[in-house]
Amino acid sequence: MDTGEMYARGLARRKRMFGEAEVEKRMTASGELGTPLQNIINSYVYGDVWEREGLADPIRSLVMLGITAASNRTAEFRVHAKGALVNGCTKQQVQDVLLLVAMYCGVPAAIETTRIASEIFAEADGSSQA
Amino acid sequence: MDTGEMYARGLARRKRMFGEAEVEKRMTASGELGTPLQNIINSYVYGDVWEREGLADPIRSLVMLGITAASNRTAEFRVHAKGALVNGCTKQQVQDVLLLVAMYCGVPAAIETTRIASEIFAEADGSSQA
Amino acid sequence: MDTGEMYARGLARRKRMFGEAEVEKRMTASGELGTPLQNIINSYVYGDVWEREGLADPIRSLVMLGITAASNRTAEFRVHAKGALVNGCTKQQVQDVLLLVAMYCGVPAAIETTRIASEIFAEADGSSQA
Amino acid sequence: MDTGEMYARGLARRKRMFGEAEVEKRMTASGELGTPLQNIINSYVYGDVWEREGLADPIRSLVMLGITAASNRTAEFRVHAKGALVNGCTKQQVQDVLLLVAMYCGVPAAIETTRIASEIFAEADGSSQA
Amino acid sequence: MDTGEMYARGLARRKRMFGEAEVEKRMTASGELGTPLQNIINSYVYGDVWEREGLADPIRSLVMLGITAASNRTAEFRVHAKGALVNGCTKQQVQDVLLLVAMYCGVPAAIETTRIASEIFAEADGSSQA
Amino acid sequence: MDTGEMYARGLARRKRMFGEAEVEKRMTASGELGTPLQNIINSYVYGDVWEREGLADPIRSLVMLGITAASNRTAEFRVHAKGALVNGCTKQQVQDVLLLVAMYCGVPAAIETTRIASEIFAEADGSSQA
Repeated sequence: MDTGEMYARGLARRKRMFGEAEVEKRMTASGELGTPLQNIINSYVYGDVWEREGLADPIRSLVMLGITAASNRTAEFRVHAKGALVNGCTKQQVQDVLLLVAMYCGVPAAIETTRIASEIFAEADGSSQA
Repeated sequence: MDTGEMYARGLARRKRMFGEAEVEKRMTASGELGTPLQNIINSYVYGDVWEREGLADPIRSLVMLGITAASNRTAEFRVHAKGALVNGCTKQQVQDVLLLVAMYCGVPAAIETTRIASEIFAEADGSSQA
Repeated sequence: MDTGEMYARGLARRKRMFGEAEVEKRMTASGELGTPLQNIINSYVYGDVWEREGLADPIRSLVMLGITAASNRTAEFRVHAKGALVNGCTKQQVQDVLLLVAMYCGVPAAIETTRIASEIFAEADGSSQA
Repeated sequence: MDTGEMYARGLARRKRMFGEAEVEKRMTASGELGTPLQNIINSYVYGDVWEREGLADPIRSLVMLGITAASNRTAEFRVHAKGALVNGCTKQQVQDVLLLVAMYCGVPAAIETTRIASEIFAEADGSSQA
Repeated sequence: MDTGEMYARGLARRKRMFGEAEVEKRMTASGELGTPLQNIINSYVYGDVWEREGLADPIRSLVMLGITAASNRTAEFRVHAKGALVNGCTKQQVQDVLLLVAMYCGVPAAIETTRIASEIFAEADGSSQA
Repeated sequence: MDTGEMYARGLARRKRMFGEAEVEKRMTASGELGTPLQNIINSYVYGDVWEREGLADPIRSLVMLGITAASNRTAEFRVHAKGALVNGCTKQQVQDVLLLVAMYCGVPAAIETTRIASEIFAEADGSSQA
């Protein structure tokens, strides 16, 4: 496969999940220094691994919340909590993932990510009511 | 709720997922020193958090594979890879979880867990053909 | 034992250690999404594990500072640094725990937590002089 | 202070805690490549940080068990579990440290270290009865 | 660029660094389940990131030793310690990387990796004298 | 060797790499509580390990960027990104280190550190043009 094609389909998926403006912002946040990393993210992460057919998108999002919470990557957890909403995950599903995190990674890992998830759901509730 | 009830239902679930003999072995592996920890695992982990209704069992298992791989807990990953099979997860689903791990936690995290998962599936194929 | 009782005694202990207002704030910080996690913290963490009799409270607090510093959980370290003061730990004890962290987890783990501990002691000195 | 003195007192302390033969074995395990690291361990870790007066030895050992369990260093945990016994820590104290680890770092961190601690106590019971 | 080309040049580089037999073994170690991960390793890791021109190979190897030691991936550290030798890194360079690890990640991270590096150098000395 | 001498040469090196004002600020940031840790940093880290002759300074800086990024220590990464510039590392070298981090520790580890490195280079470009 051509990496240019992978890049295009990865970027398209990323924009569907996180919003065009948000993705543009992240893609330019580290300037020239960040360009090869953004290529990796678009082509290999979203253009290859996220395009695989073994997992439905909502399940992939729930796994992502577990992975990013478990590896103490709160900024990335925030990104994927938003993506989980777009992919149709429910509040109850996210809650149950974070209780697994509490038990298997310790309560501090769950406290911080639960606060972030709570903010994301509150924002989503706010904008859906507006 | 009574903690005795939680313990009983947690232990029952654990035995369904991992097999009676295997669970007995783990419960006595650390002797008297391990008793309160086994109580926590039976009552709080399996008797409470695993009994919640937000996630179907196969999804919970896939999330568990992501969590244990991401936190570099390979012995626990092995346990939950077996549980994932019992809960009906497919080879393709497990593969896709581990490719997320490769991208979000780095390839070494995926190499070791992919080897373990491959062994578990091979054992299962072997015994189902026997 | 009844989980309601565990919850009550855990919450009481938590308020003694961290102050009523502070605990109320944390208990509501993640809204409805955070309720089951707060149940776990009150019942299982403070109502069970912290109520055990193997360790005196100041020793348990010093171990907690080591654990939270070692696992890179600075927000939780801050919480338990305050609790350590309430439990009667001295500045010299905290300092010696953090020098173990420097040697066994690397100096960056100690730099950040030493700064936090220094802030907590300064606040405590300020309010005791007021 | 002279680093030679620090080295001598650190090495003496190390041998008191872990036994002369064991320390000799570790000091030569990595040959010439390991010499500067062994100097750091003898002089800075045991000759300086362990010689500080803020913590009694049994408390320092309990903190060490928390730190090494929390940072997923099981080989080092085993070393310090033996040292904890020499320093007079009880089975109940070690148990309570590991239940904090279960709650604050997740149950997998506690399962493995509880098994190791159980082995160490069993060996010690065996040799004290011989 | 075509991913097939990336795969080919990545695989070629991998075999130059780690030996043909060793790479074949790793590529088949996880069977069919491991195929997509091996594609990622050959194409994206060795075929893209290792082919960049910002770092000379010996420097890249030294950075890899720091990265794998710091992230507690000892199996991967062993692989890259062998690669470092092929890339011309000296014993003194590897030693100095591991002393940085001791200070910035804690001595346990350095003890285990120093032992592994010592074995690798001993094997290399043995075979070069044979 | 005398520890006073190690302290003096370590402090001198630290000031050359990070600037006199910056080092003074860090040395007093945690007051009296931080004094023994600063002694360790000056004497053992900079006065001993950084003074070793196995690695040229720019290579040591690149290894440090890998180590601090891999261990999720972003504040310390920022410090050493500045030091890397003083030691003559190029943008392309730093970029290539961070792409190794992306692949071996996961993209989230690289996203955050790439943003920090980009800020450091932008500040440096700004002040060199002023």
